[in-house]
Amino acid sequence: MRHQVVIIGAGPSGLLLGALLHQAGIDTLILERQSREHVLSRIRAGVLEDGTVGLLRKAGVAERLAREGLVHEGFALNFAGRHLRIDLRALTGGRSVTVYGQTEVTRDLMDHRAASGAPVIFDARDVTPHDFEGPNPHVTWTEDGQARRTACDFIAGCDGYHGASRASVPARAIETFERVYPFGWLGVLADVPPCSHELIYAGHERGFALCSMRSATRSRYYVQCRADDHPARWTDDMFWDELRRRLDPVAAAHVVTGPPIEKSIAPLRSFVAEPMRFGRLFLAGDAAHIVPPTGAKGLNLAAGDVHYLSEALVEYYQDGSEAGINAYSARALERVWKAERFSWSLTTLLHRFDTSTPFERRMQDAEFALLASSEAARRVLAENYVGLPY
Amino acid sequence: MRHQVVIIGAGPSGLLLGALLHQAGIDTLILERQSREHVLSRIRAGVLEDGTVGLLRKAGVAERLAREGLVHEGFALNFAGRHLRIDLRALTGGRSVTVYGQTEVTRDLMDHRAASGAPVIFDARDVTPHDFEGPNPHVTWTEDGQARRTACDFIAGCDGYHGASRASVPARAIETFERVYPFGWLGVLADVPPCSHELIYAGHERGFALCSMRSATRSRYYVQCRADDHPARWTDDMFWDELRRRLDPVAAAHVVTGPPIEKSIAPLRSFVAEPMRFGRLFLAGDAAHIVPPTGAKGLNLAAGDVHYLSEALVEYYQDGSEAGINAYSARALERVWKAERFSWSLTTLLHRFDTSTPFERRMQDAEFALLASSEAARRVLAENYVGLPY
Repeated sequence: MRHQVVIIGAGPSGLLLGALLHQAGIDTLILERQSREHVLSRIRAGVLEDGTVGLLRKAGVAERLAREGLVHEGFALNFAGRHLRIDLRALTGGRSVTVYGQTEVTRDLMDHRAASGAPVIFDARDVTPHDFEGPNPHVTWTEDGQARRTACDFIAGCDGYHGASRASVPARAIETFERVYPFGWLGVLADVPPCSHELIYAGHERGFALCSMRSATRSRYYVQCRADDHPARWTDDMFWDELRRRLDPVAAAHVVTGPPIEKSIAPLRSFVAEPMRFGRLFLAGDAAHIVPPTGAKGLNLAAGDVHYLSEALVEYYQDGSEAGINAYSARALERVWKAERFSWSLTTLLHRFDTSTPFERRMQDAEFALLASSEAARRVLAENYVGLPY
Repeated sequence: MRHQVVIIGAGPSGLLLGALLHQAGIDTLILERQSREHVLSRIRAGVLEDGTVGLLRKAGVAERLAREGLVHEGFALNFAGRHLRIDLRALTGGRSVTVYGQTEVTRDLMDHRAASGAPVIFDARDVTPHDFEGPNPHVTWTEDGQARRTACDFIAGCDGYHGASRASVPARAIETFERVYPFGWLGVLADVPPCSHELIYAGHERGFALCSMRSATRSRYYVQCRADDHPARWTDDMFWDELRRRLDPVAAAHVVTGPPIEKSIAPLRSFVAEPMRFGRLFLAGDAAHIVPPTGAKGLNLAAGDVHYLSEALVEYYQDGSEAGINAYSARALERVWKAERFSWSLTTLLHRFDTSTPFERRMQDAEFALLASSEAARRVLAENYVGLPY
C-alpha cells in the first residue's frame, strides 16, 4: 500500500487537510484511532474566524455552514456591573465571526470525505509514524486485529495533544512551552434560547462566565470552577444561580434555565511544541499547540496550520518546490504564538486567580477600564478575535 | 498664623500646586523638610506629557522649558535585534512629549515661587498635619529649633512616598496596593552626546536598557540590574559594555562613552494608596502613588493630581462649591490606575524576570510581535505614552 500523504487523525484539522489535498488531486489516507461516533461526540467551541470559514468554503464544505451558521458582528464584555460591546464590524473594517459548532464542522467534513470516495479508516489502533526523518516514511496500525502498513511521501500529524504523532518525535528534537491554569470551566449545554443574541464574556470577582450558543434554541454556558471540581458537585440550580450572579443584571434577567443536555468540566492549558516539522512529519492543530478556550482560538488555529500545510504540499506536488514545506513550521508558529498570546491575555484578564495580589486584581480592572476608554485597545481585541491574516 | 492652603513638600507637585493656587489668588504656605539644595540634587526622569507642559505653561513657568526642552515625536523599541519606532505624532493625531529634566522643572518652579513672594519654608522639621478630619485643621513643624504652627482650610500632602502626610492618616482609613519588582535600574548620567536623538527602550534577554538624554550633550543611560546590586560593583567599562550588548547594533555603535557624573541604582515599585482625600487633607503625587520609571509617568501623574486638586480648590474659593473637592479622589485615582497599568505592563514587557517560565518569555516575544504587526497596538502604547486626557 502507498499513499502520497497519510493524515493521522479524523478530527476537523485532519479532515480539512484531507479535503483540501483531495481537491488538488493529492492522494491521502486518513487514519483515526477512534470510531466515527466517538469523534462526533466531542463537544467543542463554535466560533469560526472568517479565515476558517473561507477555508471551509474553498474546500467545498461550507454549504450547511452558510445556511445554519450565525454571523456575529460583535460580542459583549461584562465587568464590575458594566456592559461593554465590542463592535467587531466597526473595529475591523467589516469583518465578523460565525457561530457554528465544531461538531457540525466535523460532521460536514466527514460527509464530504465519504462523498469524495477518499479513504478514512476509523478504529485504527496503534497508529505509528516511522522513518519520517528519511526520504521513505511509512505508517503502521492495527485494523480488526490485523497489522497494517502503508508507505507515503509525507505524514500529517493531526491527532491532537495526546496523539501518536508528536509522541513519536525524539524528546531531544522538540521544545515545549506550557502554562496550566489553576481553574477549569464547568460547561452546560441546554435546549433553551440564549440570554443574548451575542456572546457575553464576564469577568466577575466570583470568577469568569461565558454565555454562548449553538442556535436560537440551544445555549452553551460556562462558569469558572476549581481545577479539582467535579460536575456532580454542581446541581442544576447551583449552576444557573452562579451563572446569573456573574452577569450584568440585564443579561442575568434573560437567562432561561432548562435541563442540561451535557455538563462537564474542561481544564485550561496553554501549550506549544516547536518545531512543527520533523523531516517528512508535520504537526498541525492540537498535536502541536493548545490554547485555553477563552477567545475560541483552538479550531481556528488548527485551520491556519492546515492552510499553510495544504498550500505547501500542493506547491510540492504541482511545482516540485520544497519552499512551502521548508517554511511551514516558522510560518505556522508565527501565527500560533500570536494566538497563544491573545488566548493567554484574555484568560488572564477575565478569570479570578486565587493567587492574585490586590495590586494584580486592580491591574485587571485597569485593563477593562482601558478597553472601555480606548478605541485602539478595543481594536486590538477585535482584530485578534476575528482572526489575524494568514 | 493662618493660611488658606498649607502644602507639605516643595518638590515639583507641591511647587506646581502652589503656583496654580497663588495665580488664582489663594494664599498658600509651602513647608519642606529638606534644604533647597537637597531638593534640587534629586535626579529623576525627564519626559513630560503635553498635558504637564500645558499645566506648567498655565502656571507661567514654561519659559525656559519652551526654550530648552526637546520635543520628541517618537521613540524606539529594541528587541531581539529588531528596531521598531513608535511614531507618537502619527499615532496620536499630532501629539508629542518634551524631554526636560525634572530637576529643571523643580528649579524653574522654585525661582517662580521666589519671584512671586509667596512663602516657602525649607528645613522645616517634623512637619505634621493635624485635625484634618474636622473643619479646623492645622499644621505643626519645627524651624530653627522653634515649634511653629499654622491654622488652615486645607492641607495638600505633596511630600512623597516617605512623607508625613500619608503617614498621618490612620491605617484603617487607607488601603494600599503594591508590587515590588525583583530588579533595579543602574543609571549613569554623562556629558556625552546621546546615541540616538530619540529614546530607545530595549528588551533584551540579558535585561532591560534605556537610552535617554537631558540635552544634545548630556546622556542618561540605564541597564536593568539585580535588586541587591551596588553601583560600586560596576566599573565604567562594565556599564558601557553591558549597555551596548543590550541595544541593536546601530544604536550600540553610536554609544559615546565618558566618565559618569552620577551613577546610582533605583528600585522599581508600583504602589497606590486609596483614597487620596481624608477630610481636609489631600494627597498628590508620590505621597499617594509610585510607578516604576518605565514610561516616565511619575512626574506626569503628579501633575495630573495637581491639575484636579488646583481646579477643585479654585472652584471652592471662587464659587463656594465643594463638588470638585468631593470628586478629587475618584477623578485622580481613575487616571492613576490607568498610568499604573501602563507602567506595570511596559515594565513587565521589557524586563527580564528570573522567575519567568519559558512560556512567559515567549509571551513577552509575542507582545513585541503584536506591536510590530498591529498599528492599533502601537496606538495604545502611543496614547498612553503621550498621556491620557485629564
